[in-house]
Amino acid sequence: MKFLHTGDWHIGKKLNGYDLLEEQQDVFRQLMAVAEKEQVDAIVIAGDLYDRSVPSVEAVEVFNWMMREMNIEKKYPVLAISGNHDSSTRLETGGPWYEPLRFHLHTRLEQGLAPVEIDDTQFFLLPYFEPFAARRYFEDDSLKTIQQAVAAAVAEMEKRFDPHKKQVLVSHFFIAGSTTTDSETKVTVGGLDVVPLSLLENFDYVALGHLHNRHALHSDNVRYSGSLLKYSLSEVNQEKGVWVVELTDTETNMEFFPVTPMRDVKVLEESFDTLMTPSFYSEINREDYIGIRLTNKEVIPNVMNQLRSVYPRIIQLERAHGRTAQELNVLASSDLQKKDPLTLFADFFETAVEQPLTIQQKSWLEEEYMTLEKEG
Amino acid sequence: MKFLHTGDWHIGKKLNGYDLLEEQQDVFRQLMAVAEKEQVDAIVIAGDLYDRSVPSVEAVEVFNWMMREMNIEKKYPVLAISGNHDSSTRLETGGPWYEPLRFHLHTRLEQGLAPVEIDDTQFFLLPYFEPFAARRYFEDDSLKTIQQAVAAAVAEMEKRFDPHKKQVLVSHFFIAGSTTTDSETKVTVGGLDVVPLSLLENFDYVALGHLHNRHALHSDNVRYSGSLLKYSLSEVNQEKGVWVVELTDTETNMEFFPVTPMRDVKVLEESFDTLMTPSFYSEINREDYIGIRLTNKEVIPNVMNQLRSVYPRIIQLERAHGRTAQELNVLASSDLQKKDPLTLFADFFETAVEQPLTIQQKSWLEEEYMTLEKEG
Repeated sequence: MKFLHTGDWHIGKKLNGYDLLEEQQDVFRQLMAVAEKEQVDAIVIAGDLYDRSVPSVEAVEVFNWMMREMNIEKKYPVLAISGNHDSSTRLETGGPWYEPLRFHLHTRLEQGLAPVEIDDTQFFLLPYFEPFAARRYFEDDSLKTIQQAVAAAVAEMEKRFDPHKKQVLVSHFFIAGSTTTDSETKVTVGGLDVVPLSLLENFDYVALGHLHNRHALHSDNVRYSGSLLKYSLSEVNQEKGVWVVELTDTETNMEFFPVTPMRDVKVLEESFDTLMTPSFYSEINREDYIGIRLTNKEVIPNVMNQLRSVYPRIIQLERAHGRTAQELNVLASSDLQKKDPLTLFADFFETAVEQPLTIQQKSWLEEEYMTLEKEG
Repeated sequence: MKFLHTGDWHIGKKLNGYDLLEEQQDVFRQLMAVAEKEQVDAIVIAGDLYDRSVPSVEAVEVFNWMMREMNIEKKYPVLAISGNHDSSTRLETGGPWYEPLRFHLHTRLEQGLAPVEIDDTQFFLLPYFEPFAARRYFEDDSLKTIQQAVAAAVAEMEKRFDPHKKQVLVSHFFIAGSTTTDSETKVTVGGLDVVPLSLLENFDYVALGHLHNRHALHSDNVRYSGSLLKYSLSEVNQEKGVWVVELTDTETNMEFFPVTPMRDVKVLEESFDTLMTPSFYSEINREDYIGIRLTNKEVIPNVMNQLRSVYPRIIQLERAHGRTAQELNVLASSDLQKKDPLTLFADFFETAVEQPLTIQQKSWLEEEYMTLEKEG
């Protein structure tokens, strides 16, 4: 059994307003090229397929294309779970129809307890879940923590282990001893929401999602795939890619295949003058997503507009030496002043609600605004 | 070929805030009983499966259950299209996986042009679409209206007619000569968005969705199924149900099977005193969804609360004789006064945005409110 292990796709994720769908399609093609070259038998996706529970129509289109490509066109069996960013109910749509084509997408705890068997391997696809789901399923009110809930789930799986087969767990949790980055959901520190490694020792391999850094955990057979792209500035130094895992009769072999993003995410810590010097910026890819840490201490008028004229995709601007000047507080302040109130409200609404205004809502807004203008 | 024709399910639709999911599940069971009793070969659903492009999680759960029941459990072939209320992209998810189990859900114009063949019948499943989709697909900028676009689509279908088979069109448009009700999307009056009956004369049967009144159109072989439930007060006098259509070698037989809602929608036009008299209200089902037209002309203090104590599901209150008193303007005014500002805001938000506040948004709101309270 040879399979590819990926996860944390976060389709539809935006980086400070910049849409990453193009980058996500590009990196997906690289993933497929690895699967083909390595002739894997299956593809494992360890949760967080989407970035949010109600993805945009554009994100749904991209994700549908990826799934068709993987399972219908290239005919790879797919072994996937929902993560904490996904809506398990929405992802569940279609589930019973997917399975005959060996596309297994598990979104509920109980689905994770029975293995999906492919050749000599039992895959347990345990989606992200909350302790209350375990209390309800096991009818056991003592399951207060994720640690206890996962222990109950693993005990149930172990009853179904076939000694003649290999066992792989696919899951989406924070494992004790791991370290986190900014773009992951905050986890409770103190141990309650953490799953100890020792619980997982009877599996031949554990394919994890959740943490975006594949080095977050040190273990022989328990691995995070990491995300497919850098989803925050705290991930700038992480190499992204996928694992190819081979289970032989005697051992588990793991090889990491890096992917190269169309546009990278990086941090520049320099003085304003350096950043604006052609001999400096002609040496770097200015199309990348860039976080800037200015080393200057003085106020620089119109700083963002000047920087944007050279670096079109600035995703953060801060002072390297602590002082936060007013000028830096609102990233797109100069843009703000150019927008009319209706556009500003529409932007604010879209940010807060994660949906654009409907035509009906826009017309209400316009009416209200005209009334206000008259009264003013 | 014998099939059941239904449409306009609008799963997730609310009636003045009242959730209809229970009624929708009940009426679905009645539909399935008809399918079973009549031993149909397939089930046709002519669009508007959901009530909105982003249905709630609860609506998705109910719809997923219905589809599993129909296609996976009872193994009926399903022939469905998206309507103007559906998001074609969201519904498209899973499409290629559904077809091997004879669940055909078409969401794009081009899918409608090639028939799905079951036994001796060709089904053309033409979803709701906008003229621009036809201009793009046919590469013909002269297709400005729905009428022109449907004509182009039908011409394409007719090229694929097999003279040894029957032809059924499933579609979701406003057909010339039909009459509309309040709960349907407004259509352009004046002819541009209307499809003439004559375009459809070469089909053995046309299974339509869109209008909620099955009597909206008079034709031998072109029928609206009507909605499964009454979705507005303008539909109170409509009998709801499903068609069972049988195509024989020589003719098309259609029989209508009514369904009975758990809770009906009706209008009471009476005086306040009559409405509050036990000998009156003990004779009617007070659990129904009720629109009240008061015949009184004088102001009645606290009218809504008094009526609600007898009729728990009032969906509209108005004066039969035109005068709209201030007391009637806000339906739940007495409820409003009982609610705290945070709950009021949350209700308003949900009404405007069609989504509940997230936990994060609630906590922002609470913080803001506490700050205001302190400042006040």
